[in-house]
Amino acid sequence: MDLLLASTSPIRGTLLANAGVPYSAVRPEVDEAAVKAGFAGSDAGLATALAGAKALSVSRSRPDALVIGSDSIVSVEGRRFSKPGGRGQAAEHLRFFSGRSMQLTSAVALTCGETVEWRHAAEARLQVRPLTDSFIEAYLDADWPEVSYCVGVFRLEGPGVQLFSAIEGDHFTILGLPLLPLLGALRERGMLAA
Amino acid sequence: MDLLLASTSPIRGTLLANAGVPYSAVRPEVDEAAVKAGFAGSDAGLATALAGAKALSVSRSRPDALVIGSDSIVSVEGRRFSKPGGRGQAAEHLRFFSGRSMQLTSAVALTCGETVEWRHAAEARLQVRPLTDSFIEAYLDADWPEVSYCVGVFRLEGPGVQLFSAIEGDHFTILGLPLLPLLGALRERGMLAA
Repeated sequence: MDLLLASTSPIRGTLLANAGVPYSAVRPEVDEAAVKAGFAGSDAGLATALAGAKALSVSRSRPDALVIGSDSIVSVEGRRFSKPGGRGQAAEHLRFFSGRSMQLTSAVALTCGETVEWRHAAEARLQVRPLTDSFIEAYLDADWPEVSYCVGVFRLEGPGVQLFSAIEGDHFTILGLPLLPLLGALRERGMLAA
Repeated sequence: MDLLLASTSPIRGTLLANAGVPYSAVRPEVDEAAVKAGFAGSDAGLATALAGAKALSVSRSRPDALVIGSDSIVSVEGRRFSKPGGRGQAAEHLRFFSGRSMQLTSAVALTCGETVEWRHAAEARLQVRPLTDSFIEAYLDADWPEVSYCVGVFRLEGPGVQLFSAIEGDHFTILGLPLLPLLGALRERGMLAA
């Protein structure tokens, strides 16, 4: 059975490839803004709904395959953040994050045809240290536009690690894909050697 | 002031480089086996002693520089493991790890001249899932000899992630360098922009 990743996020693909999981990436077709606008629940509930919707958008037309969907939500003091619209907004987000605790929630779902077979959500907390304006400008000089694709305006595998004084939670969850539970679910389904 | 990394470990260098920290790598001159043989304390104590000894071995001849030393200790049920001596021993280690909890301790030290200015140790726990012999052989087919350089016989950034069912603790500590506390110590010393 083919394994498809309903995501064109480079980091999620890299995580699977590095782990030695054979997959193909397919772009999901989901109106994320519409799902978010209509959602009143928790970050974990929203991330799980989006992960499932992304996977289903692919598996409906590929019922022969097992499809992985995933999504991440960043919120700070109850305010949910999307990818920055431009460098000015990125700086604005970083000024808001400064000295505050960021909650990052990632969810992953496995679907086959019309069915969500399995799903999992996990949360991490990242303490942002107090950031000076000059640091923020130098940081964006170094890592823009790469971080424009990142909710939270950071790549933990890059200079983004300099934003934080402490991190609690699973690394793979922070990168956008709760990898260990996913590998377990793939083993249970005979998609990976045990 | 120059920043030197008293390590030729590729992963530690990559962690610093990815974080945007300018450094040069220098090979430390420490008889690790002798230090380990004479040490009766905890894993954290031993890792800290080795991190300090490595850094001092470099900073004594480069008193103009700030030197980073680091070390990692892997133990399972109280037994400390070294890098495997060959593929046969790697398989033996993996069979011992199977189904058990691995404790991984990493320490980092900063030295200047004859002085240890700062040090920090952190621990992580990795639950190894039950591994079949056929999995172990396929795993070593895929990642040998790369894992021959790794205490614990795994690269978490590679297929090694498939060994584990759960991980508790800081990702950078598991990779061999408690990066967030180190970045904080470097900022305090004016070696990194705040």
